[in-house]
Amino acid sequence: MSSNPSTGDDTATVHPGSKGVEELLALLAYGELSAFERTATDAQFAPTIADKVVLAKVAATEFSHFELLSVRLAARGVDANAAMERFVKPLQTFHQRTQPRDWHESLMKAYVSDGIVKDFYREISASLDEPTRRLVHEVLSDTEHSGFVIDRLRSAIASDERLGGRLALWGRRLVGEALSQAQGVFQESAGGVTALLASNDSPQPVLLQISAMLNRITEAHSRRMAALDLMA
Amino acid sequence: MSSNPSTGDDTATVHPGSKGVEELLALLAYGELSAFERTATDAQFAPTIADKVVLAKVAATEFSHFELLSVRLAARGVDANAAMERFVKPLQTFHQRTQPRDWHESLMKAYVSDGIVKDFYREISASLDEPTRRLVHEVLSDTEHSGFVIDRLRSAIASDERLGGRLALWGRRLVGEALSQAQGVFQESAGGVTALLASNDSPQPVLLQISAMLNRITEAHSRRMAALDLMA
Repeated sequence: MSSNPSTGDDTATVHPGSKGVEELLALLAYGELSAFERTATDAQFAPTIADKVVLAKVAATEFSHFELLSVRLAARGVDANAAMERFVKPLQTFHQRTQPRDWHESLMKAYVSDGIVKDFYREISASLDEPTRRLVHEVLSDTEHSGFVIDRLRSAIASDERLGGRLALWGRRLVGEALSQAQGVFQESAGGVTALLASNDSPQPVLLQISAMLNRITEAHSRRMAALDLMA
Repeated sequence: MSSNPSTGDDTATVHPGSKGVEELLALLAYGELSAFERTATDAQFAPTIADKVVLAKVAATEFSHFELLSVRLAARGVDANAAMERFVKPLQTFHQRTQPRDWHESLMKAYVSDGIVKDFYREISASLDEPTRRLVHEVLSDTEHSGFVIDRLRSAIASDERLGGRLALWGRRLVGEALSQAQGVFQESAGGVTALLASNDSPQPVLLQISAMLNRITEAHSRRMAALDLMA
């Protein structure tokens, strides 16, 4: 009945950063499952059947990404459902606090959150082993969604100044909630994701490195808002 | 610039019931798209991540069925988005009037509506050409969903008598709304679906044939409710 530290050590030697990678895969898996739910639910706001079909297709793709991540976790002996549990609360809180009230708010939410998730991936990708990096890249690579969302938002904002003002406020709220729940994710991650993000080569303490990263993500968000002619 | 009635006649000769088949495919396509939206949205009520994943998978399958139907319509030169338009109102009205308030109501809605849709298909399948019959059968064939739904409902009803009473009432409301919106579908179908349902061999007028069919569907619904130990 004694613990077997040597087994743990072996595993750690064979898969360096293994625990962090598994936490990251579980975080992305739950992120894709939530994104699926969000996109499919937002399809109800679509002004035309054609728009609804585009969103439904995006949602189905997000679910297939979830399945890829879930299979990879299973191949590593990890039960995806159990591993995702710790990330339910911060992601659910984010979605509950940022429920879009109409079609444009839902497009804006997709635009802002996809951007932040991709920035986060760019920050973390250097720490990943090659197969994980390829998987994550596949899962986060652009769908036809981005172009669709930007087109729809640009033309709506160009033709309605008040909508632009409202969406600028909404964008600020979205990024604020996202960064606040990102802190929740770091707290829940039991150190794994944090370890991936923090570089041992840096003289800075981990918390300062993370805070600098969140700052870079906020700057990138401002550039994305400017690309829509909105003040961040 | 004159119209060419002979082309229309030729088409009618080459594809008997062609218009009815196209309306049926469009109806099923919009049905699958709505089912996708309903299932994905109801996943928010799932009590566990495992339940959520099952529902999300069902929703993704429903979307792939929509795509099959949409491709078949395109192959017949029909734009699915335009062809579905006429069925938006009755299906949307049905979903708006039967929004589940919790997990069990959402399971019950899936159970009741899947049953009715399959009954409807059985009624219509004799009028279909072989490729259409095969496609419709594939789209409506059982997913793992049915077993999952029945298991969850049976054990919940067995352990909570008041829930059983509430779900019996809910089932009655669901079938009532479904039959009422089915009338809307017949009205919107411009005669195509109705023509598939009504047999020329029958001495009965079309309206009486349809009313007899709705009666058979109601009886089948009562048997499904009895299978859950509920009064219809």
